[in-house]
Amino acid sequence: MSITAGLVIRCKAAVAWEAGKPLVIQQVEVAPPQAMEVRIKIKYTSLCHTDLYFWEAKGQSPLFPRIFGHEAGGIVESVGEGVTGLEVGDHVLTVFTGECGECSHCKSEESNLCNLLRINTDRGVMLSDGKSRFSINGTPINHFVGTSTFSEYTVVHSGCLAKINPLAPLNKVCVLSCGISTGLGATLNVAKPKKGASVAIFGLGAVGLAAAEGARIAGASRIIGVDVNPRKFEEAKKFGVTEFVNPKDYDKPVQEVIAEMTNGGVDRSVECTGNISAMISAFECVHDGWGAAVLVGVPSKEAMFMTRPINVLNERTLKGTFFGNYKPRTDLPSVVDMYMNKKLELDKFITHQVPFSEINKAFELMVKGEGLRCIISLED
Amino acid sequence: MSITAGLVIRCKAAVAWEAGKPLVIQQVEVAPPQAMEVRIKIKYTSLCHTDLYFWEAKGQSPLFPRIFGHEAGGIVESVGEGVTGLEVGDHVLTVFTGECGECSHCKSEESNLCNLLRINTDRGVMLSDGKSRFSINGTPINHFVGTSTFSEYTVVHSGCLAKINPLAPLNKVCVLSCGISTGLGATLNVAKPKKGASVAIFGLGAVGLAAAEGARIAGASRIIGVDVNPRKFEEAKKFGVTEFVNPKDYDKPVQEVIAEMTNGGVDRSVECTGNISAMISAFECVHDGWGAAVLVGVPSKEAMFMTRPINVLNERTLKGTFFGNYKPRTDLPSVVDMYMNKKLELDKFITHQVPFSEINKAFELMVKGEGLRCIISLED
Repeated sequence: MSITAGLVIRCKAAVAWEAGKPLVIQQVEVAPPQAMEVRIKIKYTSLCHTDLYFWEAKGQSPLFPRIFGHEAGGIVESVGEGVTGLEVGDHVLTVFTGECGECSHCKSEESNLCNLLRINTDRGVMLSDGKSRFSINGTPINHFVGTSTFSEYTVVHSGCLAKINPLAPLNKVCVLSCGISTGLGATLNVAKPKKGASVAIFGLGAVGLAAAEGARIAGASRIIGVDVNPRKFEEAKKFGVTEFVNPKDYDKPVQEVIAEMTNGGVDRSVECTGNISAMISAFECVHDGWGAAVLVGVPSKEAMFMTRPINVLNERTLKGTFFGNYKPRTDLPSVVDMYMNKKLELDKFITHQVPFSEINKAFELMVKGEGLRCIISLED
Repeated sequence: MSITAGLVIRCKAAVAWEAGKPLVIQQVEVAPPQAMEVRIKIKYTSLCHTDLYFWEAKGQSPLFPRIFGHEAGGIVESVGEGVTGLEVGDHVLTVFTGECGECSHCKSEESNLCNLLRINTDRGVMLSDGKSRFSINGTPINHFVGTSTFSEYTVVHSGCLAKINPLAPLNKVCVLSCGISTGLGATLNVAKPKKGASVAIFGLGAVGLAAAEGARIAGASRIIGVDVNPRKFEEAKKFGVTEFVNPKDYDKPVQEVIAEMTNGGVDRSVECTGNISAMISAFECVHDGWGAAVLVGVPSKEAMFMTRPINVLNERTLKGTFFGNYKPRTDLPSVVDMYMNKKLELDKFITHQVPFSEINKAFELMVKGEGLRCIISLED
């Protein structure tokens, strides 16, 4: 039992009051966890594009005031009624999508789209009672994707926490909460390139580079990076990318360029941009007979995926993935272990670090497109 | 050595002289097999829609005179230079697409789209010398997809022949040459439903019913047949189809009907019509998280497969298949053995039988849409 168990905790959080306006670090009250919930002391959190996207609130219904943040590592402070498998002091990663363990998706070997805890970006409250655990002078503050890690303490459904090796450095493995696992799993769990395979990666941001890291780990012989921003090419070499294609350098569709480079197409492709024409190219650039394309990036709602049926009939495979097909509770601990065993390289994804007091700098870096992951330390 | 080896054989063939006109049974000369070729005495052949389609010559460049036919069982009469693994007297099935054993596709575990012997409907001659082995008074007669089984003797590339169990009745297993294997393999090799799975089959013709037979063999608990022709529903029960949906009976898209019947979608679907809207429905009717759709039917060249990207991103899989992903030489013998072991039921596909002299009746039945497979006996 921690001494704060059952009590409201007063601590600092970075509160977003308005779309696109700097977060305000201020004192909030964090209620104790209710049934099936866990309260966590956040140690390190990182900033992901999804935070930025909902903070900018372009194209969705804005929900403010809100505490953003979903990539984080922390330590369990207290657990609510009915929680099993998690105890005070456990090291955990928060996950924006969960695993109830009971629904048809959780029981399927193939799916991680938990019915109960699947990501919900519109909900600003906890599932059990429809209320927020955060408040400032009685005013509730909205949660974000059930995690809200830009706070010294947060309350999360126990199904959205992965208990990990306590020796794992939280300032590194916190990036596995979302983007890096998404790209890595897209390659390792879904595309599954064989040793020696050729793999095309569309989009060389953090998710795409994590997909490339997956291809490197799988032993791909060629990793072709595709991006319209040539500045990304140098950095991508660290992630095992062996060749680069900038679609803007060619008059023909990039799938034709790749087919020419690879005697008919790559063995696997992973699409991490969400640009609809890149999604179509990623599908059409795989080899007939055995090629498989995996879509990760999320396009606009109006986008339409279109291809000639013969591209499918010639024995190509198209798959979509969400969070790299990892089941958060079941699978993330082993991804942390891959890092601990030096199979997975994470340090190269971490390009910046700021203290919690300077969290707005992390947003500025991301808006400028600088770096991959900025760790926000709540320990300084 | 057979006594006819190396000699021209004079025998009867059913020659198509003009698009859509009855075939003419007449004497043809069949030259000896050249290098890597085999001459076969055809025992039984069946009629498939592909024969009809090219005989009608609607929408393709017509190639006449031509000897059609590609589903057949026969016995090796003689082999050309360099042929290994086949001897005089072997029982074989002809296959419209081949397996050279040497190309990247043949060496891939996943593909059967042999580079050398992939189906070519435009070619009317043999690969090795660009000439026909059939002639009538010196006039060459075109081959069809390398098989031309509507003849007492034919010459086929050795890579387009599957050597099978000599005890297998050729008047039954000849239907495994094309359509039945196509549907069966689409389910067993590509969709791979687990025991207890729900499977939707689009199109209840011979190929679709073979896909249903695959689902039955795999132990599917629900096999939902989808067809706009309600006359097919009664027959389909013999093939394990448990439920029926006629898209014409509903105002909403059939994928919504199926999702409602199955608590979110079927586990697997197999599309055997080639109608583009059925192809899209077949994809969108599978369950998110784990559903997989397999496309078999070939649509018109102008057709465009279109779906919202979220349908893919929600962890659905889309795959195309050709000839059920069977490698003809390697895999067909085991399909014949499935029949011999009574695991696969073939007799129910055979609804009619005619002597060779009445081959035009088989065409008439198919034009009228009657029955599934008509066996044409060259033994009577």
